[in-house]
Amino acid sequence: MCSVISRVKPVQRALALTLRLGASTERSSYAAAERRRFCPGVTARVDPLLAPCRSYCSRMALTEGLLFRQLFEKESSTYTYLLADTETKEAILVDPVLETIDRDLKLIHELGVNLKVAVNTHCHADHITSTGLMKKRLVGLKSAISKYSGATADILLSEGDKITFGKHYLTVRETPGHTDGCVTLVSWDQSMAFTGDALLIRGCGRTDFQQGSPEKLYESVHQKIFTLPDQCLVYPAHDYLGQTASTVGEERKFNPRLTKSLVEFANIMNNLNLPKPKKIDISVPANLVCGVHEV
Amino acid sequence: MCSVISRVKPVQRALALTLRLGASTERSSYAAAERRRFCPGVTARVDPLLAPCRSYCSRMALTEGLLFRQLFEKESSTYTYLLADTETKEAILVDPVLETIDRDLKLIHELGVNLKVAVNTHCHADHITSTGLMKKRLVGLKSAISKYSGATADILLSEGDKITFGKHYLTVRETPGHTDGCVTLVSWDQSMAFTGDALLIRGCGRTDFQQGSPEKLYESVHQKIFTLPDQCLVYPAHDYLGQTASTVGEERKFNPRLTKSLVEFANIMNNLNLPKPKKIDISVPANLVCGVHEV
Repeated sequence: MCSVISRVKPVQRALALTLRLGASTERSSYAAAERRRFCPGVTARVDPLLAPCRSYCSRMALTEGLLFRQLFEKESSTYTYLLADTETKEAILVDPVLETIDRDLKLIHELGVNLKVAVNTHCHADHITSTGLMKKRLVGLKSAISKYSGATADILLSEGDKITFGKHYLTVRETPGHTDGCVTLVSWDQSMAFTGDALLIRGCGRTDFQQGSPEKLYESVHQKIFTLPDQCLVYPAHDYLGQTASTVGEERKFNPRLTKSLVEFANIMNNLNLPKPKKIDISVPANLVCGVHEV
Repeated sequence: MCSVISRVKPVQRALALTLRLGASTERSSYAAAERRRFCPGVTARVDPLLAPCRSYCSRMALTEGLLFRQLFEKESSTYTYLLADTETKEAILVDPVLETIDRDLKLIHELGVNLKVAVNTHCHADHITSTGLMKKRLVGLKSAISKYSGATADILLSEGDKITFGKHYLTVRETPGHTDGCVTLVSWDQSMAFTGDALLIRGCGRTDFQQGSPEKLYESVHQKIFTLPDQCLVYPAHDYLGQTASTVGEERKFNPRLTKSLVEFANIMNNLNLPKPKKIDISVPANLVCGVHEV
C-alpha cells in the first residue's frame, strides 16, 4: 500500500456509513453537524448566493498552501486537475489524458512539484488515460483507481480512503452508476468535489454502457454528493458547454436530471439514445491497464 | 457616468503612476510596500511555489462574499468571466461572446445576480462580443471598454477607473500593445488580473494588426502586470492549450516571450507570420458598436 493512501479507521467508516444515509434522513445528526461545521449557518437547499458570505465554504478552490490548476483536453472535453501542497511540493493529478501528457508534464516540471499519485475517477470510455505513460516518465509515481473498476493500478481505492499530498488530502466516496468503479474525490475541507462522470455541470454521465445503472447513479449523487455543503465546488471530469465549475447547491437546485424523481430520472437516462462513444473499443481495454495498451 | 465606475482621486492617480515605474525601479518604495501589503514576505521573482503558504495572495480566486465563474467559448477559445457580490448580487461580466449569450444569460438568471456592467478588455478581432445584444435583454446593463479602443460604449474606461460590484471592484490598468485600447482589470486585493490579450498563459496577444506594437506590449506587461504580486492569478481572454489560469510569478519566470529582452521580444513578434484572423473583417466593425452590427 502506498504511503499516500491511508485507510480510515472503523469508527470513521461507521460515520461515513451514517453520512451515506444523510440524504434520506435530513435530520441525521452527523450530516447536520458536518454541514454546520464546514459551512456554519448554511442549510441544505438554500439559494447558493444566499449562503452567509463569511462561511468557510464560500471560498473558492484554493486554501492556504494549496496549488490548484484545472486543465482541459478538447477532443474528449476532459478536465484534468493538478493539486499540490505548496510547502512539501507533493502533488496529485486527477484524470490525466494521453493527448495532453506533454503539456501536463511541462507544467509539473515548471512548478517544481513532485507528482505522487495519478488517479482516475473511473475507467474512461472516451479517452485513454496518460497514467501508464506518465509512470514511465516520472519515477515513483503511483496510479490509483477504484477497486471496483476492474482495472489494474498501484493503488485500488475504496470508500473512505484518503489520497494525501503534503498536509492536504482527498477522500474517496464511491459513486457508482456511470460505471461500477466511479468515485468522487472530496477535499479535506469539503470545499471541492471532483465528481468524475457521476455528476456533470447541469448533467451527469450516461448509464447505457459498461456497468451503467440509472438507479445506482441517482443514489450515488443524492447520497454522496448532494449531502456535501451547498458551496462545495463541483469539478467534473467533462464539460461540453465551456462551463468550468459549479457548486453542490447549484446542482441540487438546477440540475435538469438529478432534480427529478428516481423514476423520471431513470426514464430520461434510458431514452437518451446517444451514439456509442467513438473510442470505447480502444479506450476501455487500454484504461484497464493504466492506458498503455497498444500505445 | 455610470455609478458603478468611480474615478480615482489625484493622489491615487499619482500612486498609480509611481507603480507604473515599479518594474524598472525594483526598489520603488510604493511597489515594494504594495507587494508586502498584499503578499507579505513574497518578493518579486521567487519561485511561485516557494511563496509563504500563509500569505494572503496564495488563496485562489474567491474571497469571502465573491462569486466567480470562468466560462469558455470554444470556437474562438475565449474566456468569459462572471464576478458577483454574494450579498448585494451585483455582478459584472468580462469579455462575453455572442455565440454563448444564451448560456451566460441562463447562468446569470439561475444564480439570481444582477448584471451591472459587461466589459470588454479590448475591441476583439476574433469574435463578436455579446455586449450589445445582452444590453437589449437585460434592463440597466451598461457596456464598458477603453476610451482608446475607438469603440462606442456606455462607459469609456481610463487608467485607474474602478468597476465596482457590491463591495468588490476591478481597477483598470491600461495595457496597450495588442491594440491601443487594451486594458487589464485587477481585483481590489490584487489576487486576480484579467489580462485580456495583453498577457496569455505562456504567451501574449499578437501585435501585427489593428494598432499592434511589440514595444508597447512589452512595456505594458512589464510595467502593469509583472509588477503585481507573484501569486496574483492571471486570467487571460484566450487559451488554446486547455490551460485555465496562471500566476504573475509563473509568467514572469516561464513566459517564453516576455522573459526575453525587448529586442528579442520584438523580433519574435515581428516574425510570427500568423494568418489573418478569420473573423476580423466582421468582428472589429461589430465590436466597435458593442457587437450588434449586422447581427
